[in-house]
Amino acid sequence: MHVTLSATLAANEDIARRRRSGERVLHLAFGEAGLPVHPALLARLADAGGSNGYGEVAGLAALREAAAGYWSRRELPTDPDLVVCGPGSKSLLFGLLVAIGADPGEWRSPGDMVLPMPSWVSYAAQAEIVGVRPILVPTPAGEGGVPDPDQVRSAVLHARAQGRTVRSVLATLPDNPTGRLARPETVRRLAEVARELDLVIISDEIYRDLVHDPQATPFLSPADVAPERTVITSGLSKSLALGGWRIGVARLPHTPDGWALRQRLLAVASEIWSAPAAPVQHAAAYAFAEPEEIVERIDDSRRLHATVARAVADRFARAGAKVDVPQGGFYLYPQIPGFDSSDELARTLLDRHGVGVLPGTAFGDEPRSARVRVATSLLYGETAEQRLAALHGSDPLSLPWVAESLDYLEEALGGLTTKEPSRARRGMFLAPAPAR
Amino acid sequence: MHVTLSATLAANEDIARRRRSGERVLHLAFGEAGLPVHPALLARLADAGGSNGYGEVAGLAALREAAAGYWSRRELPTDPDLVVCGPGSKSLLFGLLVAIGADPGEWRSPGDMVLPMPSWVSYAAQAEIVGVRPILVPTPAGEGGVPDPDQVRSAVLHARAQGRTVRSVLATLPDNPTGRLARPETVRRLAEVARELDLVIISDEIYRDLVHDPQATPFLSPADVAPERTVITSGLSKSLALGGWRIGVARLPHTPDGWALRQRLLAVASEIWSAPAAPVQHAAAYAFAEPEEIVERIDDSRRLHATVARAVADRFARAGAKVDVPQGGFYLYPQIPGFDSSDELARTLLDRHGVGVLPGTAFGDEPRSARVRVATSLLYGETAEQRLAALHGSDPLSLPWVAESLDYLEEALGGLTTKEPSRARRGMFLAPAPAR
Ligand SMILES: Cc1ncc(COP(=O)(O)O)c(C=O)c1O
Ligand SMILES: Cc1ncc(COP(=O)(O)O)c(C=O)c1O
Repeated sequence: MHVTLSATLAANEDIARRRRSGERVLHLAFGEAGLPVHPALLARLADAGGSNGYGEVAGLAALREAAAGYWSRRELPTDPDLVVCGPGSKSLLFGLLVAIGADPGEWRSPGDMVLPMPSWVSYAAQAEIVGVRPILVPTPAGEGGVPDPDQVRSAVLHARAQGRTVRSVLATLPDNPTGRLARPETVRRLAEVARELDLVIISDEIYRDLVHDPQATPFLSPADVAPERTVITSGLSKSLALGGWRIGVARLPHTPDGWALRQRLLAVASEIWSAPAAPVQHAAAYAFAEPEEIVERIDDSRRLHATVARAVADRFARAGAKVDVPQGGFYLYPQIPGFDSSDELARTLLDRHGVGVLPGTAFGDEPRSARVRVATSLLYGETAEQRLAALHGSDPLSLPWVAESLDYLEEALGGLTTKEPSRARRGMFLAPAPAR
Repeated sequence: MHVTLSATLAANEDIARRRRSGERVLHLAFGEAGLPVHPALLARLADAGGSNGYGEVAGLAALREAAAGYWSRRELPTDPDLVVCGPGSKSLLFGLLVAIGADPGEWRSPGDMVLPMPSWVSYAAQAEIVGVRPILVPTPAGEGGVPDPDQVRSAVLHARAQGRTVRSVLATLPDNPTGRLARPETVRRLAEVARELDLVIISDEIYRDLVHDPQATPFLSPADVAPERTVITSGLSKSLALGGWRIGVARLPHTPDGWALRQRLLAVASEIWSAPAAPVQHAAAYAFAEPEEIVERIDDSRRLHATVARAVADRFARAGAKVDVPQGGFYLYPQIPGFDSSDELARTLLDRHGVGVLPGTAFGDEPRSARVRVATSLLYGETAEQRLAALHGSDPLSLPWVAESLDYLEEALGGLTTKEPSRARRGMFLAPAPAR
């Protein structure tokens, strides 16, 4: 086994340390939704405290039924018994990795997995822990979250020719780090390749409800086209900002293999985490039923994420970066000319310009591509009041604290292209701004 | 990788299924504390709902400080930075298994682990998932939770002579399934052997505060005698009946190795579960600070568990079973003459007498030993009212629902020795009693 502290964790610890010592750092390195809890969910949590017994490993029936309804309303009719809940979708992704690689009753190698390059930090880190070797396949140009289907085909055939076992391929729809949503045609081709090669598709759809403009960017799940082999994971950490509550859900294929996978996933879940916190499950059941107030909250969040992510992309573009317009979530993934590597770029942004981002290498990308992932959701404010003002205001970009951060960023990016430390940064030890 | 649905899970599903179909089954198969949440903890949970950001992987500072205080008050001075929290102590035990077997930066075999025989179901199941082979070593006669130190020594030397890597030994103090607390002398000898063989000791002390009579049965932690190599895990699932809230804590050795282990454990934790649910952490911080109302609640629980566990042990003894008096928690582990195997015994108890228990084999015990684990905590009642009456009443055994269950059990055990289905059981389809 092999474990290393993830790049995200290390970068975030570094930023926290700098801030404690009085440095000003604009924190664009953390994938947190940055919004308060909806009061209806607070009320549900408070009411459910008495739910203290060890519950069903798969999750409360009410939560599984609500999640089944959530998918059924998205044209994926779902049997609640093929829903498995976990403390965060991350735990479910880990459990699936083990369960897909395991046979009940006999030992076998966990097999390998195809990942998009770039892709979210934890997929490869989880694979490393259980000895699954990731096969990184680039996404088609301008897309994100889905490995190029033709290249998947050749990479898997090549790996198999060398005696490797490849069992699954992962997609992130829409994507972290790129903020892009793969085109339906790409998803369709991936599904075909997966069928041809008999791969399980793990479709991480935790940002699905945060596609900025669903008219312009239609969403196709691999489960729509290859339902027999697709596992969907989702959760409430992003759409409802419940990262700290730890709740995720998985939808398994409605096939005999899906039922067998469920049994193995439950076996793993019962030995690692048992179940999500029961009071959180009750609140999540309310949220997945999608009552009006929750739908409105997600609508407001989506608008805010879209507005701010685009504004930040705009600042990067104006400073000469190559950046695709974000289509979902709260990320962008600019490439900045004039740097030799993404690590150097991220280091310069932090050390000389007081802007914390993650280098593309954290997402398995080419070291020399000079890309960084920028998370825009910590710009909404420091306090619940500021964040709610951003959420409900008609023009979040004009709120003083948002505007000020954007100006700070603009100056930093200006300094980056002229290779001068930015003014904000030079003045920093004279009048350290409050940590943000 | 290899995963099988645990025997507990399967047995509990079977019991639930039988009850749904109208069978009466006395449920003595589940290790749940069976008591309501203390109102002060409900209030803390409700107040902390707004804590929704992804928090520190190690856990909130307030919780780590409170847990450090908890151990410091037990003569184990503790640095809060060497406390790591997880969603249940089970998750921490899994994380430790991976972290102890891992090297930062290089791949190595996870190594093997010594377990007491019998021991809690999940240790061996977790080991199986990550490819750690358990070495089962019997406990000294009349004790439980600690493998016989001399036999540990010879088993490890033997395994090493065969080229196996053995990294750790586990102890459960007090024990599930036996309900016994290992003698200080045994713990001391185990610590010596662990030091001689350079083994990490994992000391699962989740039942520590439920030792029935601390005067009569003094508690010694391996951390008291081998602090440099002992990791303690604990939690609130048992002492405060918070199993469904999912909160556990680990205390790492205060040595350079302990700090390195912390780093690896955090790396694993951050890729599997991130952190326990934040609102639960706030409530747990209150509990670990041990304010008077919480101490009283644990005192009351301990008394109730002791009273009922002893009463049940008494019923078994009167029916001819060989059973050690329980010393902690809510379990006993009787051996019943006249049966060929623990599986047959458990099956007969369930099928012919309507009593659900777990066979010793679920705990890795000799199949032919005809032992079963009996959990007594689901006897306190069906409703919160009944359970509080049991908790606060001066004579829980005389409460009608407790007395009735004990009578039912007594009759079942009578039938067991005469090999006749018991009367309660025979009448069952005429007047099915409500599920209990
Ligand atoms: C792509 C992706 N998947 C999954 C997660 C995990 O979310 P959680 O475990 O909170 O459900 C994240 C969070 O950063 C993410 O970005
Ligand atoms: C010996 C022992 N350790 C650990 C646990 C796990 O408890 P939790 O994960 O709820 O902290 C249990 C629960 O049954 C147990 O009996």
